[in-house]
Amino acid sequence: MTVNVGVIGVGMIGKDHIRRLTTVLAGSKVVAVTDVNLDEAKRVADGVPGAAAYTTGQELIKADKVDAIIVCSWGPTHEEYVLAAIEAGKPVFCEKPLATTQEACLRIIDAEVAFGRRLVQVGYMRRYDRAYRALKAVVDSGEIGAPLMMHCTHRNPSVPGHYTKDMAITDTAVHEIDMVRWMFGEEIVGTTVLTPRKSNNGGELQDPLFLLLEMANGALIDVEISVNIRYGYDIRGEVVGEEGTVALADSSAVTVRKSNQFSGRVPEDWRERFIQAYDVEFQEWIDGVRDGGTYGPSSWDGYAAAVVSDAAVESIRTGRRTVVELGEKPALYN
Amino acid sequence: MTVNVGVIGVGMIGKDHIRRLTTVLAGSKVVAVTDVNLDEAKRVADGVPGAAAYTTGQELIKADKVDAIIVCSWGPTHEEYVLAAIEAGKPVFCEKPLATTQEACLRIIDAEVAFGRRLVQVGYMRRYDRAYRALKAVVDSGEIGAPLMMHCTHRNPSVPGHYTKDMAITDTAVHEIDMVRWMFGEEIVGTTVLTPRKSNNGGELQDPLFLLLEMANGALIDVEISVNIRYGYDIRGEVVGEEGTVALADSSAVTVRKSNQFSGRVPEDWRERFIQAYDVEFQEWIDGVRDGGTYGPSSWDGYAAAVVSDAAVESIRTGRRTVVELGEKPALYN
Amino acid sequence: MTVNVGVIGVGMIGKDHIRRLTTVLAGSKVVAVTDVNLDEAKRVADGVPGAAAYTTGQELIKADKVDAIIVCSWGPTHEEYVLAAIEAGKPVFCEKPLATTQEACLRIIDAEVAFGRRLVQVGYMRRYDRAYRALKAVVDSGEIGAPLMMHCTHRNPSVPGHYTKDMAITDTAVHEIDMVRWMFGEEIVGTTVLTPRKSNNGGELQDPLFLLLEMANGALIDVEISVNIRYGYDIRGEVVGEEGTVALADSSAVTVRKSNQFSGRVPEDWRERFIQAYDVEFQEWIDGVRDGGTYGPSSWDGYAAAVVSDAAVESIRTGRRTVVELGEKPALYN
Amino acid sequence: MTVNVGVIGVGMIGKDHIRRLTTVLAGSKVVAVTDVNLDEAKRVADGVPGAAAYTTGQELIKADKVDAIIVCSWGPTHEEYVLAAIEAGKPVFCEKPLATTQEACLRIIDAEVAFGRRLVQVGYMRRYDRAYRALKAVVDSGEIGAPLMMHCTHRNPSVPGHYTKDMAITDTAVHEIDMVRWMFGEEIVGTTVLTPRKSNNGGELQDPLFLLLEMANGALIDVEISVNIRYGYDIRGEVVGEEGTVALADSSAVTVRKSNQFSGRVPEDWRERFIQAYDVEFQEWIDGVRDGGTYGPSSWDGYAAAVVSDAAVESIRTGRRTVVELGEKPALYN
Repeated sequence: MTVNVGVIGVGMIGKDHIRRLTTVLAGSKVVAVTDVNLDEAKRVADGVPGAAAYTTGQELIKADKVDAIIVCSWGPTHEEYVLAAIEAGKPVFCEKPLATTQEACLRIIDAEVAFGRRLVQVGYMRRYDRAYRALKAVVDSGEIGAPLMMHCTHRNPSVPGHYTKDMAITDTAVHEIDMVRWMFGEEIVGTTVLTPRKSNNGGELQDPLFLLLEMANGALIDVEISVNIRYGYDIRGEVVGEEGTVALADSSAVTVRKSNQFSGRVPEDWRERFIQAYDVEFQEWIDGVRDGGTYGPSSWDGYAAAVVSDAAVESIRTGRRTVVELGEKPALYN
Repeated sequence: MTVNVGVIGVGMIGKDHIRRLTTVLAGSKVVAVTDVNLDEAKRVADGVPGAAAYTTGQELIKADKVDAIIVCSWGPTHEEYVLAAIEAGKPVFCEKPLATTQEACLRIIDAEVAFGRRLVQVGYMRRYDRAYRALKAVVDSGEIGAPLMMHCTHRNPSVPGHYTKDMAITDTAVHEIDMVRWMFGEEIVGTTVLTPRKSNNGGELQDPLFLLLEMANGALIDVEISVNIRYGYDIRGEVVGEEGTVALADSSAVTVRKSNQFSGRVPEDWRERFIQAYDVEFQEWIDGVRDGGTYGPSSWDGYAAAVVSDAAVESIRTGRRTVVELGEKPALYN
Repeated sequence: MTVNVGVIGVGMIGKDHIRRLTTVLAGSKVVAVTDVNLDEAKRVADGVPGAAAYTTGQELIKADKVDAIIVCSWGPTHEEYVLAAIEAGKPVFCEKPLATTQEACLRIIDAEVAFGRRLVQVGYMRRYDRAYRALKAVVDSGEIGAPLMMHCTHRNPSVPGHYTKDMAITDTAVHEIDMVRWMFGEEIVGTTVLTPRKSNNGGELQDPLFLLLEMANGALIDVEISVNIRYGYDIRGEVVGEEGTVALADSSAVTVRKSNQFSGRVPEDWRERFIQAYDVEFQEWIDGVRDGGTYGPSSWDGYAAAVVSDAAVESIRTGRRTVVELGEKPALYN
Repeated sequence: MTVNVGVIGVGMIGKDHIRRLTTVLAGSKVVAVTDVNLDEAKRVADGVPGAAAYTTGQELIKADKVDAIIVCSWGPTHEEYVLAAIEAGKPVFCEKPLATTQEACLRIIDAEVAFGRRLVQVGYMRRYDRAYRALKAVVDSGEIGAPLMMHCTHRNPSVPGHYTKDMAITDTAVHEIDMVRWMFGEEIVGTTVLTPRKSNNGGELQDPLFLLLEMANGALIDVEISVNIRYGYDIRGEVVGEEGTVALADSSAVTVRKSNQFSGRVPEDWRERFIQAYDVEFQEWIDGVRDGGTYGPSSWDGYAAAVVSDAAVESIRTGRRTVVELGEKPALYN
């Protein structure tokens, strides 16, 4: 069975997913697209054999020939489309954020719980990265003992001019927020943001930030967020256990010996670093939809990320630790 | 357009390619299978929606609904199927070896030249490996100056009981033989095999071997072939240029710190090491077939590998350098 | 000229320094030893040609034939001996701590300032480590831009039963406290200690700790202190600059490929990791004494380490950030 | 007891050893120097407290106050000085080569055997290098099974204009020739030199060379000798055992992350790479002399290196394998 997919939002991300489903992965077909810019949706549909453009997301979601939906439109529209997909009883893959407020996330959770089965997957692709999976496999094996800490760095070579301090949490570190919940199998209960000496590369922006996350079982996570570090896109992480540690390795394919150095490559951007994780994420989603289940990051994960992000942003404002309080977790997500 | 593929031979390799085309890659469909064991072919066809079993390879090749053929039957049958595919004017992917004798390879070349367009691709997957491609990109960039030497190791943890000294060349080092021709853009003109102290792990087998290959421009390649080294499947290579070198890097996803060591993983077998290269190889082949061209290792490459392998095997026998002499290269392969 | 050295305290450390001066380094001679255990002092003196045992440290310090003193007796006695050495106008190398209270450190500073010339060097040997020096050379070169953060780990395989939470600061992290002051050329102005999930390997001990240090210019240092991590003695550090980073590299002399791993060695204990730094530290001290100057960590550095340690220990108690306030720095130490 | 040393030859190497004995190592004193350039010898003596200049090497060797001799004069003079030292019954450290012909080496061996006790140590410093020692420790532990092969590279950034193809063996690869005899505990029985494509960096010089060495037990050694490779001084080696391998690790003290790379340092020259090995070599020699024994590379090792070098040079000339035939080994050297 081929999964017929409708894509809402054909910006850079949407186009990339269409390319992926059409020319890289097995088992799916893009049959419907829509966009706030309808002309653009039509142009994209023209380039994909068998695809039609729809005037609205709602229409696309309801279309009989659409089996499953990918939402990669503007953040504030996510809630509406995800709720519509749930109403239609169709699996929906929603790029992060699940919704722009905690309340909206809770409305989605309520709808999905009422429906009685998981339909929603949120686009946290690190869980599909080969290296993070290998990291988790070592942690889960017990080989390094109980995990007590994790040291993370999230480094970007540069960010656009409109990037704000809050976005260092909501757009950037939110990946670590989801990842550590998954890695440790625990919720985050407290967060603090510290502000080191400021880089001159970031203009007025407070960059870097140093984010502390406390897990329910006491494990402590630290995240360096440097978004103007020029030298590359460098995502690192080391889990510290009672008897040993495990860290993401440098991933250079080759080692060059030249000019009094041996050297390997640091990725240029998130695309180079995570392109394979996106492929795996969508292949597993397609396979899951076809087999009648979705098993990736859930609405609950989307909600938790929103609550922790809000707490961290408050921490930036106050300069103090903020307690994270989640609502009760519905059984559907256990 | 979906490429409709017929697969000849549904042993371990054949089944793996069917899985790949059906559940991993985009753009193709397995519509026909056959095998010397017809019952097995039928069982496999039953598991692939839309696939039918054919009684013979010849029948399968001629079937209207088959656009392109994959040959992964027993080596001695390759020539017959590849020639039939050329006769039918259909693209054919033939697992190595192209054929079991130099003469058979030349017959294929003659047929393809007579047809007037390349149809045949031989299954040398290293050219599709991310690390070898990165290696070649550095060499081709001129960054390390003209390439003068290459040091290679081909290490297997163990080999089956029927493995012979000649197979160390024809089954094992043949990958390096193809790879260095591609890496250096030169033919091999001489070969010598040396026999170091014998490992006790290999029983009667002369293991390891040390293979020397001389390129037409004088570049010298050495290949350690160790096939009972227990510790892992370890493929390494370093190109030595005038001003620097470039080497395949270790590819471990994570680094573990435990028991007074920091350590990374060495792959267990060729599958772990090269599975992604197979995916890339077939995706590019499918895309090439769809777009009307095939650009991978050619019949000429299959022939050259056969001639060099024969020379190396003779070198084992005589203990001396053997000259490699190729026939004239048809323009089709330039 | 040979420097004639008197050693106060012939415990494990004292004996090791005597061995070093006698059999490893050039330019000095141990001519006098003393210890609270006089019999032991005599036994040690008997083993060193030309050395005599003295009844007290004061006597040894005043002895005409003693040019310079090494203090490696019990911490509470350091102040007395260092002050006596200053009074005698003789260079003195004092193992850490300089003294057990801030007030005692200030008394030493006052005495040295009154004497008018530096005589005291405190035993912070990381400044003499090849790797830390290479790190500092990169930072000072400006190659990575202004340094904004440093991530450190200080991991011990195990600690003795009498080890307390405070000692994680005063005995263990005090090395990082001195090192970052030297690395950044800045004083520490604030300190916070966080308590992650507790390791079961440490019994009742709160282990690990996570220490945050704020430099006067805003640079932020984090130090993981894990003292029961079993796998080795692992001292790591990465300075994060505006344009790049520099980190201590793993120092294994060889790489072993075995059992599906490539691996390098992590040192077993501080001795294996820092033995060469001790050699360099003492060779430079001897050379300095001979040439009429001492240039290593000063009384001021000893005092600053004491003040920061006290603040960090208070931080453990209160669970909150503690401000670090140093007295005014005498010109002698600029 | 202090060892009083006389140094014959105060060129670059001689001066460096005098510095080492005087300002780095414990237990020795340079009391006598001589040089073919007597004025230079006098200038050097003036700079070393307690040292006197002697008119000839013979005079220096006989001087009562000289306990032991270091020979670092011009190669053709080595035989004479080493023989004189043996006649005087004094330990002598002779920089490589022991002598310039096999016959001269045999005369030294005869004299030493007649004397009845080892006095001569030859300056092969790799046996004192931390990394080579760690390599040998792994090999000797049996951890990787019986050693079957070794892959070596000896790379120099550049060589002076007078450097010849033969010197690639006699001055450069001679270090590997001694090292593998020590590493494998076996004599070399055959040698072949291959000539890869020539680097343009070396002008008329045939560079690189590829040297094959066969050990008595069949183990096979290959050595890449590249002497104009620009990028650094890069000495590498990997011993291949039956169950695993062990290789010299890169030795960079720090890792820099900058400009899309992570990188470590390759040494600039032999001094940077081996300076510590020289220190260890001489400290052990001094200690050995003091304790009445010399245990480093012997006259026999110097002779064997000469014989193998001669064979390899012949191999360059003939382009063929040359058999290595050593005389009978006197019991003194077992």
